[in-house]
Amino acid sequence: MQVTRAADYAVRVMVHLAGLPSGQRATRDELAASSEVPEHFLSKILQTLSRGGLIASHRGSSGGFSLAKPPEFVTLLEVVEVVDGPIQLNVCVAAGVGCCRMTRCAVHHVWADAQSALTKVLRGATLARLAAESQGEGAWS
Amino acid sequence: MQVTRAADYAVRVMVHLAGLPSGQRATRDELAASSEVPEHFLSKILQTLSRGGLIASHRGSSGGFSLAKPPEFVTLLEVVEVVDGPIQLNVCVAAGVGCCRMTRCAVHHVWADAQSALTKVLRGATLARLAAESQGEGAWS
Repeated sequence: MQVTRAADYAVRVMVHLAGLPSGQRATRDELAASSEVPEHFLSKILQTLSRGGLIASHRGSSGGFSLAKPPEFVTLLEVVEVVDGPIQLNVCVAAGVGCCRMTRCAVHHVWADAQSALTKVLRGATLARLAAESQGEGAWS
Repeated sequence: MQVTRAADYAVRVMVHLAGLPSGQRATRDELAASSEVPEHFLSKILQTLSRGGLIASHRGSSGGFSLAKPPEFVTLLEVVEVVDGPIQLNVCVAAGVGCCRMTRCAVHHVWADAQSALTKVLRGATLARLAAESQGEGAWS
């Protein structure tokens, strides 16, 4: 029960991009260095984030990567789910899939409650807040 | 980010055992049927639960399996961790292991908070409560 390394690295990349001054882009090398993501892994992560609509890539001499949406509107949950897929603490609480034991299994609602508690925390953390905290502007630092 | 099938099945077995009348034991066949655990998988799960100190096996004509501790003192978290190991939402929040990025990574405390929220729900659910709810004695049923 753990986020993948890819999701962990994707979060680092997204927080770095969220902390850039408005209009600035980050190169692949800069992202690899600042986020400590192995370069051979970074391309795959950037592709996934791009396909998921979270980042945009720009060509040319001032090219690079930037967020596709304002960081106030992107949560940690969204980044994790774009990389790892929807969070499902147990197969019985997968969205849109009923469990045949649901009506007689007392544990079903505990799995559902635990999943809600987990996703609530991840949904409450926006990239804007995380970037501000990383730069020492938040109460956390 | 999902509990294993083994942990899910182990929880079913434990809730069934918690619901038995005092002093009664369950046979392997009974556990397989009531918990809908494939028989080839059940032996491995029973071994793990026994090694983890959660169940006791009894030989003889009135033999079978029973809980090793009163169900009031066993939580869903304990069962999951005996089978899957300690819950670690991300490698950076593993118990006893520091993360070298911890002091400058704003996401660390979010992973920690999410892990706390998740484990709090699982720690709050005792086998006694789950068994009572399964038998229609709880508010849940």
